[in-house]
Amino acid sequence: MIKAGIIGATGYAGGELARLLLGHKEAEIKWYGSKSYIDRKYSEIFQNFFEIVQDPCLDDNLEELSEAVDVIFTATPQGYCSSLISSSILSKCRVIDLSADFRIKDVKVYEEWYGLQHKNPDFIEEAVYGLCEINRQSVKNARLVANPGCYPTCTTLSIYPLLRENLVDVNSIIVDAKSGASGAGRGLKTDHLFCEINENIKAYGVTDHRHTPEIEEQLSYAADASVLINFTPHLVPMNRGILTTSYASLKKGVGYHEVRNAYEKYYKDETFIRILENDVFPQTKWVEGSNYVDINFKIDQRTNRIIIMGAMDNLVKGAAGQAVQNMNIMFGIKEETGLLQTPMFP
Amino acid sequence: MIKAGIIGATGYAGGELARLLLGHKEAEIKWYGSKSYIDRKYSEIFQNFFEIVQDPCLDDNLEELSEAVDVIFTATPQGYCSSLISSSILSKCRVIDLSADFRIKDVKVYEEWYGLQHKNPDFIEEAVYGLCEINRQSVKNARLVANPGCYPTCTTLSIYPLLRENLVDVNSIIVDAKSGASGAGRGLKTDHLFCEINENIKAYGVTDHRHTPEIEEQLSYAADASVLINFTPHLVPMNRGILTTSYASLKKGVGYHEVRNAYEKYYKDETFIRILENDVFPQTKWVEGSNYVDINFKIDQRTNRIIIMGAMDNLVKGAAGQAVQNMNIMFGIKEETGLLQTPMFP
Amino acid sequence: MIKAGIIGATGYAGGELARLLLGHKEAEIKWYGSKSYIDRKYSEIFQNFFEIVQDPCLDDNLEELSEAVDVIFTATPQGYCSSLISSSILSKCRVIDLSADFRIKDVKVYEEWYGLQHKNPDFIEEAVYGLCEINRQSVKNARLVANPGCYPTCTTLSIYPLLRENLVDVNSIIVDAKSGASGAGRGLKTDHLFCEINENIKAYGVTDHRHTPEIEEQLSYAADASVLINFTPHLVPMNRGILTTSYASLKKGVGYHEVRNAYEKYYKDETFIRILENDVFPQTKWVEGSNYVDINFKIDQRTNRIIIMGAMDNLVKGAAGQAVQNMNIMFGIKEETGLLQTPMFP
Amino acid sequence: MIKAGIIGATGYAGGELARLLLGHKEAEIKWYGSKSYIDRKYSEIFQNFFEIVQDPCLDDNLEELSEAVDVIFTATPQGYCSSLISSSILSKCRVIDLSADFRIKDVKVYEEWYGLQHKNPDFIEEAVYGLCEINRQSVKNARLVANPGCYPTCTTLSIYPLLRENLVDVNSIIVDAKSGASGAGRGLKTDHLFCEINENIKAYGVTDHRHTPEIEEQLSYAADASVLINFTPHLVPMNRGILTTSYASLKKGVGYHEVRNAYEKYYKDETFIRILENDVFPQTKWVEGSNYVDINFKIDQRTNRIIIMGAMDNLVKGAAGQAVQNMNIMFGIKEETGLLQTPMFP
Repeated sequence: MIKAGIIGATGYAGGELARLLLGHKEAEIKWYGSKSYIDRKYSEIFQNFFEIVQDPCLDDNLEELSEAVDVIFTATPQGYCSSLISSSILSKCRVIDLSADFRIKDVKVYEEWYGLQHKNPDFIEEAVYGLCEINRQSVKNARLVANPGCYPTCTTLSIYPLLRENLVDVNSIIVDAKSGASGAGRGLKTDHLFCEINENIKAYGVTDHRHTPEIEEQLSYAADASVLINFTPHLVPMNRGILTTSYASLKKGVGYHEVRNAYEKYYKDETFIRILENDVFPQTKWVEGSNYVDINFKIDQRTNRIIIMGAMDNLVKGAAGQAVQNMNIMFGIKEETGLLQTPMFP
Repeated sequence: MIKAGIIGATGYAGGELARLLLGHKEAEIKWYGSKSYIDRKYSEIFQNFFEIVQDPCLDDNLEELSEAVDVIFTATPQGYCSSLISSSILSKCRVIDLSADFRIKDVKVYEEWYGLQHKNPDFIEEAVYGLCEINRQSVKNARLVANPGCYPTCTTLSIYPLLRENLVDVNSIIVDAKSGASGAGRGLKTDHLFCEINENIKAYGVTDHRHTPEIEEQLSYAADASVLINFTPHLVPMNRGILTTSYASLKKGVGYHEVRNAYEKYYKDETFIRILENDVFPQTKWVEGSNYVDINFKIDQRTNRIIIMGAMDNLVKGAAGQAVQNMNIMFGIKEETGLLQTPMFP
Repeated sequence: MIKAGIIGATGYAGGELARLLLGHKEAEIKWYGSKSYIDRKYSEIFQNFFEIVQDPCLDDNLEELSEAVDVIFTATPQGYCSSLISSSILSKCRVIDLSADFRIKDVKVYEEWYGLQHKNPDFIEEAVYGLCEINRQSVKNARLVANPGCYPTCTTLSIYPLLRENLVDVNSIIVDAKSGASGAGRGLKTDHLFCEINENIKAYGVTDHRHTPEIEEQLSYAADASVLINFTPHLVPMNRGILTTSYASLKKGVGYHEVRNAYEKYYKDETFIRILENDVFPQTKWVEGSNYVDINFKIDQRTNRIIIMGAMDNLVKGAAGQAVQNMNIMFGIKEETGLLQTPMFP
Repeated sequence: MIKAGIIGATGYAGGELARLLLGHKEAEIKWYGSKSYIDRKYSEIFQNFFEIVQDPCLDDNLEELSEAVDVIFTATPQGYCSSLISSSILSKCRVIDLSADFRIKDVKVYEEWYGLQHKNPDFIEEAVYGLCEINRQSVKNARLVANPGCYPTCTTLSIYPLLRENLVDVNSIIVDAKSGASGAGRGLKTDHLFCEINENIKAYGVTDHRHTPEIEEQLSYAADASVLINFTPHLVPMNRGILTTSYASLKKGVGYHEVRNAYEKYYKDETFIRILENDVFPQTKWVEGSNYVDINFKIDQRTNRIIIMGAMDNLVKGAAGQAVQNMNIMFGIKEETGLLQTPMFP
């Protein structure tokens, strides 16, 4: 059994980690970390775990925790994991960081977009970007995995084959993304109150959302060229789900079959990536509660642009599910273990 | 492996049966019945099953089906199962009927409240009312299980100990129930359109909802006396979940501990019934996607009434989950098999 | 023109007051009070007023304000209005208090249920309970109006004729109420975040909600006898709307016509009370954005109980609309002025 | 008083027309047309009008109706108005058609995108496209107004100044639009059921939505050049509201002030167009129930693209509100009459 500890267990991603790990046959949770609720029963904070989890919330003592577990998940605010990580911890256990601290290789870019000073830039190089379907090999031996952001996961996976196969103009990419409210976390802000989000849609972080450089870095690797994008996230009145609608100009002569083949080439054996049938467009409800990403595309002959859509559950493939998938890879067990939940509909 | 067939697989309860059975280690689905979609791929109708289920939808041929499977689930409109059932079918396989056809022992009551003529009243006596926690023993050997209605499950389970222990006045019970929209099914009605339900709440079926006699029959068994209730269901703008808020007058001298003890007596070893801690009230979100029923009560000293609250997922414990639980009991496997999903929050 | 000031203009009820008064031909808003946002433009806080309102938020200086306006609306937390009110203020302008401070005549009851010490009990007697349809005459000359709570308005109006006409047993009343989230206000609590309320329903304040004594006091006046009730509010995932479903035992021999006549007797000339046609049940969406209360009832012959349903917009008839209606009465203008918005559907 | 008739009064846009005209001081509704509900009381179909409207639903007899009223609103499916219109009708009264029948000047384009044969192409030329802020002068004397589609209104108004002032590349425009469910109408489809839309977001009509050529035609007029766009609508789980997020490449040297000035130039005196302050992005909730369109933009220096956002209520400015605005212009009364409702929040 893999012994796991969760730091930030009382946030939405932390709670989802607990849900997934409780259903995982080869892992057990040894530590429900939550600085805000130390000593309170975890199931008081998330009542869905009543009679399922008996443990109390514990402090965020990473040194102590690293002795007790095989893997630590940090589902904590930006800057927190990097402030606590150390060689000593990494020599004793593996760390999967769900924050952005180790996702971006260029520390200046991180510091500029996040408005933070990075506390431990030395570990950035070692950290592996845990986009499982792309970086599976590197994840295997990683001590420190930077679990991708929700928008970057959906965007990168849905555009990746097009760039790898050189089918679109790298300077033409526009990503219009839509997310449910759990992506905003459980913090207290007027903007996150029910009445402010319900029956409403808005764009936010226009031109300056912090997932932009993360997406650009990954797309640049795929294209083997520098990629700049427009990225506009929107807040949608629903709990879960991300839909990305991306636009790009097709290279000359590229048609349906070239594109379809590109997706098949990279994803046909991927359990968690479903390329939908022609003219069936992704819907977030069809992946809710699951680790699947549904992807499809449509070519507009009139403008010679391609529209690429990706849908996933932001808390699963966009956070906790992908973290568990990374854990499975790191510990050499079947990658799908604990992640084959059928999406829940309705 | 238990071979299972689903009749009505393209309704919401049918889809939930498929979701649960796909995650059940000891069962496999052999037949996705759907008269409306014969020969279309099941995963086209419910896209969440894409790449998970390859089967087409089949006709509702119960005779043929009974040769092919060990158990048939009928998730069909009232009157349909009773029109198809036969001794021949029951001699070959077991049937779990999610409709109301075999729930009510008095056929006249059924015909009056449902406005239908019962096609096969001979099987009513044999049918076992599949409220697992109460009728577990009879379910074991049943050939035909009448799977309880959603409201009756939540109401009966939450009130049962009070009547068995004679703690409340049998003539004082009022049940005010609230349900998400999936309870109304996938049929086309203006009243079920998004814009008619969203941002709205209403009572419906006031004094004449068809679950009333079903609840009364079960409560009467519990009380060993004839029980008449008021039952008022409401439609709430959410997909899943039922909350019942029930009111009853306490017998003289009954206090918190007598009531708490009654719940403990009947439910303390029940996996799927969670009696919450004092002053924690059930919320439907805390059981979503799971087979749990959360129950609690509060005594109003001023009026000497007790308020009993029960919350569950109408598609799981209120339909497909309980049906699987019944299957597990009937086939002698562990009752919780395939049903230990942690509720999903948020 | 009636000059009006709003204290607490940046809460939901305060915003609704502004919306209604801006559409009122005989009133103008002179003061947008908001301690939290002093000097910021009001339309920055509530962006719906952009280009409609140019005013900044001002401090809550009631003495100064009372010189500048004819009427002050206090849409503030419990205990605030009572701490500021004075003879001097009331001698210069009228006050309509949307908090509970002056609603309950027995100060001990107020202090017990609200857990506050009343700062100005001397004004309680003078204050008129502004349930317009019932207390219209007393409102006319009131200097201080206690604007009724949302639940009490809907409950009292829907039950009042039954008690006045002695048609139900005064000890049998149970009120099961459902409210949208705006009733909880704009304060920051985890429980009010979108993801906690959406796709969820729960009871809260079971047996001890603070509107209970307010309702009981009003029902007692109607019955001319002491009335104790059970009152259970629920939180529904929608922005606006209250539905109350009330239960009572009918006096012997009382039938449909006696009840219908009672409602006609008291309400047939009331613009804002709509007694629906037989078997049409109130829905909150049908009154959204308007000052109407929709009421209907159904008799259950089997239990001899009556089920009474009332629906209204909690921010309009349940708060700001009724406050404006009170203002209209107090200033001798047509009671419907500024309040004849047709409900918005969908 | 302007006498108005509504054809299609029991659809969502028809109901909204009724709501707005009932609050309009200089208009009265003489005819509630609804083929599906002839002779039933209008307020039975839309219960929000109970006790407000006493009229029954009438047949769609346009010849008869044209004798009785000054203006006919047709809020009917595509192809219906064009099949009924005639010179005789237009000689007797004015017609404002809320369908697409007369919006597109090139009948072949209409027939291709709508898959219909146009029944009365002779009137296309005469028809005036009723985008009030742009075509105000032509609307004045129009006998037949083609009321713009919801998406085209929001898109065109938000991009128009940029094209008129030649600030963006005409071939670079991508429109990613999001709409609430009322835009889909009140027809019965599985896709429009509550459980299919709630907690879900999807794109639809990708590359072939019928509003595409309508938008392109209007943008082409603005640019005085042929404009092709990508247009991708999405369905959002809310009743009302459209948000368009548009992307375009800026012409060389164009910066914030040029763009801001362009918007000021065309819209600074427009009551219903609100250009928000820098970095405040439109939200649909801020315009709900009103005739306002909120617009803002943001320049991305990195990609030299501009992101333009527009928000409005699809049933008001996107349908019934704009229709009333057109009526006001046609009858020479103040354009804002009956349309100055403050948006409702929350």
